[in-house]
Amino acid sequence: MGVKVYGMPMSTNTVRVLAALNEKGVEFELVIVDLRTGAHKKPDFLALNPFGQIPALEDGDVVLFESRAINRYIATKYAEAGPDLLLSSGTPAERAVVDLWLEVESQQFGPPIAALVYEALIKPMLGGATDVTVVEAQATKLEKVLDVYEARLAQSKYLAGAEFTLVDLNHIPYTNYLMKTPKASLVTSRPHLLAWWQDVSSRPAWQKTAAAIPF
Amino acid sequence: MGVKVYGMPMSTNTVRVLAALNEKGVEFELVIVDLRTGAHKKPDFLALNPFGQIPALEDGDVVLFESRAINRYIATKYAEAGPDLLLSSGTPAERAVVDLWLEVESQQFGPPIAALVYEALIKPMLGGATDVTVVEAQATKLEKVLDVYEARLAQSKYLAGAEFTLVDLNHIPYTNYLMKTPKASLVTSRPHLLAWWQDVSSRPAWQKTAAAIPF
Repeated sequence: MGVKVYGMPMSTNTVRVLAALNEKGVEFELVIVDLRTGAHKKPDFLALNPFGQIPALEDGDVVLFESRAINRYIATKYAEAGPDLLLSSGTPAERAVVDLWLEVESQQFGPPIAALVYEALIKPMLGGATDVTVVEAQATKLEKVLDVYEARLAQSKYLAGAEFTLVDLNHIPYTNYLMKTPKASLVTSRPHLLAWWQDVSSRPAWQKTAAAIPF
Repeated sequence: MGVKVYGMPMSTNTVRVLAALNEKGVEFELVIVDLRTGAHKKPDFLALNPFGQIPALEDGDVVLFESRAINRYIATKYAEAGPDLLLSSGTPAERAVVDLWLEVESQQFGPPIAALVYEALIKPMLGGATDVTVVEAQATKLEKVLDVYEARLAQSKYLAGAEFTLVDLNHIPYTNYLMKTPKASLVTSRPHLLAWWQDVSSRPAWQKTAAAIPF
């Protein structure tokens, strides 16, 4: 029984998991759970994730949800394949820096970029009209976060240090969508952030992942 | 040089870290960073945490921020003392369940309970007036999360399984404040959740931590 991911290829949280599996060279099957038909609120899917959100992962007897927890599992189970995404062979202090920046993605970066991308990119696709005041308010929040990132990346090639880790990977799906909005300038105006983005988005595993995203 | 925590004893995120240190029996010094005077936005503190938020931790040469990352560090560094908060001696699947529910706290439980507690408890203390419509809207969101918790705790003594872990601990500071609001009924009306709360909040390490909270 191989690895199954339940989700949609346009969902950033699903793509976060696919990106990790591709980095590790793990074969998987993507089982489509179509949010537009409410498939995520039906009993079959709620048995996988009681919160009714994609993605979920099935790996033999292991069933998980929450994309960031799934990625930690993938990074741990497949530690030997591909990059050491959690610096598991590093010192406790080095691993703590990975955990710190994983939390920064989750707590500082995630909320404003998710709201901005929804308003500027996803909502119009679903037939709604972008509210520019919402975009501006979220961009203002995101700017403050990205100022910290720019300073960090001036001193360190990747967010958690000298090596590409799960921290960088977890940022890719939303940054990819941000670059398709009029607010791509949040990245392109910050030279170290732009260099980081060009680096991480050109990785073969991400190129393979991105090719499966429908837009 | 001992462990220093920079924060305030009324801050839930600070208290989350103090609770972990007390569970592990680690001596620490609490260095007050008074949000009311803007101390968290001054250069001294920004050198510890560029996002200007409490808490931060200093342990010898290690400087960390983000309370959930700090707690993972404490649980790892002091794995041998007190409870095994990350089930580090468990199977990969057991550890993945801990990571999963740590993310549930962060992504599902955290946002609505933080907004509810701010509106119903903190805002009036700061001289503002509670907006009841905000409280009700956040309570509705939190109810859906707590329904999942109730079903989980009907099958499992603690959120990540049979043992008390960092998952339970990370929930305590906000639940403690929720119990001081008119929405304590969100917990008391759910029998398994209430039993869990009575259990985790009666732990000696939490009792010691709670005694230092000023209200």
